[in-house]
Amino acid sequence: MSRIDTTLLREINCGTVLTALRADAGAALRLAELSTRTGLSRPTVGVAVDRLVDAGWVEYVAGDATAPGRPARLARFRSTAGYVLGIDAGPHKVLAVLADLQGETVATQRTEVPANESALAVVGGVVDSLLAEAGVAASDVLSCAVGAPGIVADGEIVHAPSVPGWTSGQLVAVLAERLSVPIQVHNDANLAVLAERWCGAAVDAETVVFVQWGTRLGTGILIGDRLHRGAHGAAGEIGYSITPEHEQATAGEEGLGPLEKAVNATALVELARQYRPDGEAIARPEDVFAAAREGDGGAKAAIEAVAVRLARGLAPVVLTLDPDMVVLGGGLSLAGEAVLKRVRDQLAGLTLASCQLELSVLGDRAVVVGAVRLALDDVEARLLPLRPSTS
Amino acid sequence: MSRIDTTLLREINCGTVLTALRADAGAALRLAELSTRTGLSRPTVGVAVDRLVDAGWVEYVAGDATAPGRPARLARFRSTAGYVLGIDAGPHKVLAVLADLQGETVATQRTEVPANESALAVVGGVVDSLLAEAGVAASDVLSCAVGAPGIVADGEIVHAPSVPGWTSGQLVAVLAERLSVPIQVHNDANLAVLAERWCGAAVDAETVVFVQWGTRLGTGILIGDRLHRGAHGAAGEIGYSITPEHEQATAGEEGLGPLEKAVNATALVELARQYRPDGEAIARPEDVFAAAREGDGGAKAAIEAVAVRLARGLAPVVLTLDPDMVVLGGGLSLAGEAVLKRVRDQLAGLTLASCQLELSVLGDRAVVVGAVRLALDDVEARLLPLRPSTS
Repeated sequence: MSRIDTTLLREINCGTVLTALRADAGAALRLAELSTRTGLSRPTVGVAVDRLVDAGWVEYVAGDATAPGRPARLARFRSTAGYVLGIDAGPHKVLAVLADLQGETVATQRTEVPANESALAVVGGVVDSLLAEAGVAASDVLSCAVGAPGIVADGEIVHAPSVPGWTSGQLVAVLAERLSVPIQVHNDANLAVLAERWCGAAVDAETVVFVQWGTRLGTGILIGDRLHRGAHGAAGEIGYSITPEHEQATAGEEGLGPLEKAVNATALVELARQYRPDGEAIARPEDVFAAAREGDGGAKAAIEAVAVRLARGLAPVVLTLDPDMVVLGGGLSLAGEAVLKRVRDQLAGLTLASCQLELSVLGDRAVVVGAVRLALDDVEARLLPLRPSTS
Repeated sequence: MSRIDTTLLREINCGTVLTALRADAGAALRLAELSTRTGLSRPTVGVAVDRLVDAGWVEYVAGDATAPGRPARLARFRSTAGYVLGIDAGPHKVLAVLADLQGETVATQRTEVPANESALAVVGGVVDSLLAEAGVAASDVLSCAVGAPGIVADGEIVHAPSVPGWTSGQLVAVLAERLSVPIQVHNDANLAVLAERWCGAAVDAETVVFVQWGTRLGTGILIGDRLHRGAHGAAGEIGYSITPEHEQATAGEEGLGPLEKAVNATALVELARQYRPDGEAIARPEDVFAAAREGDGGAKAAIEAVAVRLARGLAPVVLTLDPDMVVLGGGLSLAGEAVLKRVRDQLAGLTLASCQLELSVLGDRAVVVGAVRLALDDVEARLLPLRPSTS
């Protein structure tokens, strides 16, 4: 399919009709119903729908053939009139999702980043195979958003110690070879908090803190449906807080802050090894979780220790923001209910007003789902009739 | 003067003319100039001004009599058409300001709160003598806002450990005996941050943290000109952060949090006494500041110690919010540039993105000025033609 006509949607009647068709999860509607919902006359609706069909935004579908009389013709938004591309360009994996214009996932690709490489090495290939798998032409992708670790200000990665030397410029260049649409780059935790608010753990929350807890530690902050990025795009970088374990405030050679070093995946594995006689069998956080599930006391103690440290690091964030909800995400949140309960209990003793603490519903898809959401927001802001944005 | 007619201002022409007259600090304008600025015809402006004069909102003043020809008649907003009342009901003092509708201070009253009493004991008398001094009838006060210590949610003081037993209900009752207009109650630090943004240190800042540093420690947070109050009105209560000095997270009998206990006025005085051979001469923070100015090493060391502790407590706030500016206010900020420099240096080493740290410009008037601002906002929202609110 070639690029479809978007100018049409700026015409009021076509825009009004399309907005009505996109509501209710894109259900098919009779033209008489569309007339009622839009307040436009039946003939005006008919002309608008015909034009939207010609332009590729709307299709006619047959009504219920078992009902008496001639089946009515229904109009339906073509959610596959275009696509959006969301990418999580993490330090260890690239996860890409192609979604239709209703936000439904059409295809997913996931590729590990080879050791000593960055996402740059694989992101182009991931996009190529994603589009090939879905059978979608690059020209039908209407917008793209990317989540990346580090501080992103005005779309530029200005500080990404976990991925030395890479820049958003290089990333955007790789993508721009394939896509001639806007490409946004955002901090990964910021995308994750948008995703949890959109369709995850925080659907009803007003002030939300998403904790990206894995190799690194960062938070994304949503206040009244607006991302709080801060004066330098550095809001939520609590991994640099000093702790009793790491008093040195400056980031080490590996670019990790004191709190990150105290609670991250490496800290968990090292603690579990110290506590266990056969420490060598523990190589990854998943090993610690598995051992704890089997009742291993050392693994449990290691999880307990990082949970207590995390709660101490989160307490000032909760005291500062008084959020409705804190969502624990990232690889270490996969320890599940046990770690959740421990962090929750500790946090309750360290804060003044209670706040809900929940596990991420979206798991390691949170960043990519947030990227899809922002790409959809971009399509809606630039091309489709207006609706409220989430960022 | 009896209560003036406000319904008139909802009429579009009168509202438009009054808005034009209130701009430029309420300068007097010729009717021809008003016609140009409003886009209304000269006769329409004339009718509107006459009606506003009759209603008491506008007055005619004589133009420049030395210019050739007949002096033009100028119209001017009567900023004394009504008044607003701002009150800082602190634990130790009640400070009240009566301001006109341009925000200019008309009268100020300040009364110490007697030992073992609360602001409740004196606030009624302060308001009575303020109005008497100004010669303003209570019926000409159009709105009132009060700043109080503690957590204020939906206008109710829900947690005010420094003023045991008092409630916003009692406070509002005392004021409602005198005023039959809306009475708002807000957290003191929240009012202070609004004031610094309005006419203090943070006029150009987008995200601002005001640190109320005295007997207690709290912060007011402004994000994009909106107060961030949090889910329970408890945002900014960082005094409850644990510290190396006070690991116990719960508030003590006196209701002070760990960080408050480590950095407040009492801590400063106690440290200075420890360091000085003649410790008994030190009774109040002002004594410590005076001794430090005279070169006393012990006093300097005490100020240094609380400054370092405060910076450690503020670092997670700065990491979380990445503000443009942090404003140091409250009694301990009166130590001045020396303490500012020390906190600034420490904070720079503990945070990732630099943020401006400044002393309060409004000093101990910050809370009452913020109260005046919110009372003006209320008058503008309810009675005057619309303009953007600051909260």
